[in-house]
Amino acid sequence: MVRVAIAGASGYTGFELLRILCRHPRATVTTITSRANAGEALADVYPSLRGHCDLIFQDTTPEILTADADLVFTALPHQAAMEIIPELLNRGVKVVDLSADFRFRDPAVYQAWYQEHTAPDLLAESVYGLPELYRDTIARARLVGNPGCYPTSILLAAAPLLVHRLVDPQSLIADSKSGVSGAGRGLSLTTHFCEVNDGFRAYKVAEHRHTPEIEQELSVLAGRQVRISFTPHLVPMSRGILSTLYAQLRAGVTAEQVRDAYHDLYGKERFVRLCPQGQFPSTLQVRGTNYCDLAWKVDPRTGRVVVVSVIDNLTRGASGQAVCNMNIMMGFDEDCGLEDAPWLP
Amino acid sequence: MVRVAIAGASGYTGFELLRILCRHPRATVTTITSRANAGEALADVYPSLRGHCDLIFQDTTPEILTADADLVFTALPHQAAMEIIPELLNRGVKVVDLSADFRFRDPAVYQAWYQEHTAPDLLAESVYGLPELYRDTIARARLVGNPGCYPTSILLAAAPLLVHRLVDPQSLIADSKSGVSGAGRGLSLTTHFCEVNDGFRAYKVAEHRHTPEIEQELSVLAGRQVRISFTPHLVPMSRGILSTLYAQLRAGVTAEQVRDAYHDLYGKERFVRLCPQGQFPSTLQVRGTNYCDLAWKVDPRTGRVVVVSVIDNLTRGASGQAVCNMNIMMGFDEDCGLEDAPWLP
Amino acid sequence: MVRVAIAGASGYTGFELLRILCRHPRATVTTITSRANAGEALADVYPSLRGHCDLIFQDTTPEILTADADLVFTALPHQAAMEIIPELLNRGVKVVDLSADFRFRDPAVYQAWYQEHTAPDLLAESVYGLPELYRDTIARARLVGNPGCYPTSILLAAAPLLVHRLVDPQSLIADSKSGVSGAGRGLSLTTHFCEVNDGFRAYKVAEHRHTPEIEQELSVLAGRQVRISFTPHLVPMSRGILSTLYAQLRAGVTAEQVRDAYHDLYGKERFVRLCPQGQFPSTLQVRGTNYCDLAWKVDPRTGRVVVVSVIDNLTRGASGQAVCNMNIMMGFDEDCGLEDAPWLP
Amino acid sequence: MVRVAIAGASGYTGFELLRILCRHPRATVTTITSRANAGEALADVYPSLRGHCDLIFQDTTPEILTADADLVFTALPHQAAMEIIPELLNRGVKVVDLSADFRFRDPAVYQAWYQEHTAPDLLAESVYGLPELYRDTIARARLVGNPGCYPTSILLAAAPLLVHRLVDPQSLIADSKSGVSGAGRGLSLTTHFCEVNDGFRAYKVAEHRHTPEIEQELSVLAGRQVRISFTPHLVPMSRGILSTLYAQLRAGVTAEQVRDAYHDLYGKERFVRLCPQGQFPSTLQVRGTNYCDLAWKVDPRTGRVVVVSVIDNLTRGASGQAVCNMNIMMGFDEDCGLEDAPWLP
Repeated sequence: MVRVAIAGASGYTGFELLRILCRHPRATVTTITSRANAGEALADVYPSLRGHCDLIFQDTTPEILTADADLVFTALPHQAAMEIIPELLNRGVKVVDLSADFRFRDPAVYQAWYQEHTAPDLLAESVYGLPELYRDTIARARLVGNPGCYPTSILLAAAPLLVHRLVDPQSLIADSKSGVSGAGRGLSLTTHFCEVNDGFRAYKVAEHRHTPEIEQELSVLAGRQVRISFTPHLVPMSRGILSTLYAQLRAGVTAEQVRDAYHDLYGKERFVRLCPQGQFPSTLQVRGTNYCDLAWKVDPRTGRVVVVSVIDNLTRGASGQAVCNMNIMMGFDEDCGLEDAPWLP
Repeated sequence: MVRVAIAGASGYTGFELLRILCRHPRATVTTITSRANAGEALADVYPSLRGHCDLIFQDTTPEILTADADLVFTALPHQAAMEIIPELLNRGVKVVDLSADFRFRDPAVYQAWYQEHTAPDLLAESVYGLPELYRDTIARARLVGNPGCYPTSILLAAAPLLVHRLVDPQSLIADSKSGVSGAGRGLSLTTHFCEVNDGFRAYKVAEHRHTPEIEQELSVLAGRQVRISFTPHLVPMSRGILSTLYAQLRAGVTAEQVRDAYHDLYGKERFVRLCPQGQFPSTLQVRGTNYCDLAWKVDPRTGRVVVVSVIDNLTRGASGQAVCNMNIMMGFDEDCGLEDAPWLP
Repeated sequence: MVRVAIAGASGYTGFELLRILCRHPRATVTTITSRANAGEALADVYPSLRGHCDLIFQDTTPEILTADADLVFTALPHQAAMEIIPELLNRGVKVVDLSADFRFRDPAVYQAWYQEHTAPDLLAESVYGLPELYRDTIARARLVGNPGCYPTSILLAAAPLLVHRLVDPQSLIADSKSGVSGAGRGLSLTTHFCEVNDGFRAYKVAEHRHTPEIEQELSVLAGRQVRISFTPHLVPMSRGILSTLYAQLRAGVTAEQVRDAYHDLYGKERFVRLCPQGQFPSTLQVRGTNYCDLAWKVDPRTGRVVVVSVIDNLTRGASGQAVCNMNIMMGFDEDCGLEDAPWLP
Repeated sequence: MVRVAIAGASGYTGFELLRILCRHPRATVTTITSRANAGEALADVYPSLRGHCDLIFQDTTPEILTADADLVFTALPHQAAMEIIPELLNRGVKVVDLSADFRFRDPAVYQAWYQEHTAPDLLAESVYGLPELYRDTIARARLVGNPGCYPTSILLAAAPLLVHRLVDPQSLIADSKSGVSGAGRGLSLTTHFCEVNDGFRAYKVAEHRHTPEIEQELSVLAGRQVRISFTPHLVPMSRGILSTLYAQLRAGVTAEQVRDAYHDLYGKERFVRLCPQGQFPSTLQVRGTNYCDLAWKVDPRTGRVVVVSVIDNLTRGASGQAVCNMNIMMGFDEDCGLEDAPWLP
């Protein structure tokens, strides 16, 4: 059994970690921390877990987080994460960080979109935690930067096209739609039920902070610098991301080549499911799971390929993927604790 | 491992059985049937289960259902259930029936609210599958009539008050609110998204067929004939039932006696959770689980007690309870396969 | 044209007043105030009104509110309302107050459920603004206490039964369900989309502040002191209240007498619609309007009558009724500016 | 007063016509027809209109529709529309057709995406009813083909860019999201509440029938043949369309030129509202109205412009626009009967 601590366990991603880990056969949650809820019992903050987990929220300090843990999940805001993680590592634990702080290869990029990076040395060491692309290095990592929710949905959709050089990398456009839990449990008018319900809107058009993260990984896949148009939207639902990806096919590329590219990259993957030809996925079919379901269509009229991916933003887009990374880091089966089927409806 | 078959597996309760059973450590689903989908692969009807279960829907016949099963769940419409169940029992399997056909003690009551009963002899044998009340007889049963969703939520709320003779049984009023999945997966204007979304309504006021089922069990608990006012309502949500129960306290009954009654009956129950004083539950906190969460308030101004219960109508109100009944019938732990924590959000 | 000012125009009820009044043929909104948004253009706070109304939010002071107004709507929190209203009246305007501050006849009741009343003399003068009951005194009033949303839905449902002495007044139970806009536009976890969506809950069980307001008016109707059980619930929808009312019929009362009572009281009312026998209303059918739609069922099994009423909490439950009161106070047709049909869906 | 008849008045667009027209100051609805509901009173089918309109649904025949009408709105399925419209015109009424049957200039295009056209001569006469583009010809038209909902949202977003030659017309990509009412009131699993609620999906990817309609009008605007990638998605909400449009800017085009193009084309339009710089619209802000709210962003990183448009699919995308077309055809003010502000929330 690996002993794990969760820093920032009172938010939605922290709670989702708890939900998964309290049933994980090879992990035990020993410590949960929360600045806002320190001293409170978990069941008082989340009555749904009454009877599942008797922990008390503690304060978020390196001492507490490492006192009884082999691995720490940091579900903290960016900046707060990089302030505490160096000390966690010094104390000998492994870390899966769910913030943006350790996802970037180049501190200058982080700085341009977030703020100055206070642990740039660790940036060089940290591994981008997308298992389908970096499984082997994750297995050896001490620090994993868990991918953002939008990037996960877009990178998995785009990877086969870029790896197999089927599209013009500069033509990529990602139109993404997210449920409201992506905005977290904090209070703002933009998450007020009446301002969201029965409406739909775009936000941070062409300026969302996930853009450089997406471009970094697309560039690796394409073998050249890539720029993408990325537009996030807010859907009146709690969970789920659907990304619609558009790309111009290179001259002569056939529908068969596209299909083969997806099957080649994902045919043996546990957590990527390819929809049958002509079916397009709903976010409902992956809720609460670590799946990414993919479908695509080659459109000869326009010479483009359209790819649709769906994930659960809290599971595959955050906590499920984090547990998957833990599994890889610890040598467990990748789907350990992540085998549940989704509810319907 | 118990081998189980599911008759009528393509509806919501059938699917919920599948979702639970495909991860059950002591059961294997060998057979799924559906008149509408016979011949189709499960994953084509429910893409969310792709990779979890490779079964093909077969036709709903006694031969098919018993060919490779020790126990059959019948998730069929009423009438269809009682037409097939006698033959299933003859072939030596146990049956948990999710329809209304085997919930009644008196065929005349069934006939007054449904239609003529074609297997009245089995009515005498069948056991009402509410584990908290009938655990011991369920354990010995060959045929369990799985309770209705509304009755489950109301009976669990009312039982301590009646068992301990704290209220006037004739004063009971149950105002219940259900998510839309309770209406099933069939098509009608009343489940059209646009007719439900952002609205709320009552239906079948004082004439819902769950009324006699509720009254039958309340009468057993009270030791006398009970009549209840029961009003169901439709909530624009997919899952969940909340029932608000009103009852007149007998003279002199104190808040402490009420509290003691709930703790006495449910203090050791695995699937009933009592909310801390002053907290009232949301249906969200039991989604996808077999829990019934209960809270109550004694109102000295009116001399009444108000009880609020929440369940997931598809899990505790149907398929989760059915699996729990199977567990009891097979001698497994009651929570076997039912241990998952709910999602939030 | 009557010139009107709206104090507290940036909340949902303030906005709803604006929406209605900016199309009212006999009223002109001259002044809108908001402490939070003073100095901002209306269209910047509510882009939906761009092109409809060019006003700028001003500060909430008596001078500003009365500078160019014959009548002021106060859509302020309780306490804030009674602090400013005496001075507004001194300056010669009429006032329709949407808070709880001037709904009570007895300052002691107000004090028991809210706080000390700072203008008790005006309590004696103010009129409870439910047009179906107090039309004539509203017409002569200088100050109207606009009813609460829950009380409106419950009083209209109960009035015929009490006026015609058809039920035992002490047997009344009101189980009410409201959309989220009833909680206002302020931020709290209870209105966070993810905490509300796809869930249902009760709150303030047997202790909601609308209870004494309901009881005050029920007692007037019954001609004796009435106590009611009142339970509010939160529905995952933006607008609407449905109240389900239960009452014990007096011995010998027939379904015909009940029907006659409703037709007698409401047969000529513009804004109360009686559903055909056997139909029960959805909140959707009154959205955005001043209607209260009513249905009832006499249940001979239990000797009770069940009444269902639906209103839009922001329109009939607040701002539409306030405009209706203004119409009566100014001698306009009651439905002036309130004639729109609801959307569907 | 113009006398109008509505063919197919029992669907959502028919109802929306009724809702608007029953309050229109210069029109009277004399006749409503519905094959499914012939003989039923309007208020029995739509209780929300009780007290607003006393009409009875009649059968859909040319005789009935023209007996007491100067203008007929045909809210019929495609094919059914073109079967009846020639006879309506022969009888001397004007027609606004809400189906796809008279939107196309080239019968071959219609035939390729729908079926054979049975009144190709009228295609040459009919006018595409987008007022901002074809106001003058609409004014003289006998037959108007009312635009589709998606095309309306996309054409209004794209027109300034094409008219002013600011983008490469072959680079256009339209990613659209619609509420469920766009699928109509008919029954199918895709509009079942539980299959839609809390989920999001794409459909008819690169093959939706609105594609040729969009391309026809884009080609006119661009002065050359245009092909577009168009992906519709289904949002768990009742009303509203948001389209996100992507286009490659021609070399050297500045943000100022883009802004000027929008202000040039729409600065004086009654029903197009341009959002302030940096604000992006929600569908909520145009619900129930004829507005199209637009915002755009020039992204120098990618050399693209991203445009976001929102409309109400039933109002601007169907019935509101149809009434606007009637206003133009009859010489009324364009906003006659269309002046209401949207609700919020």
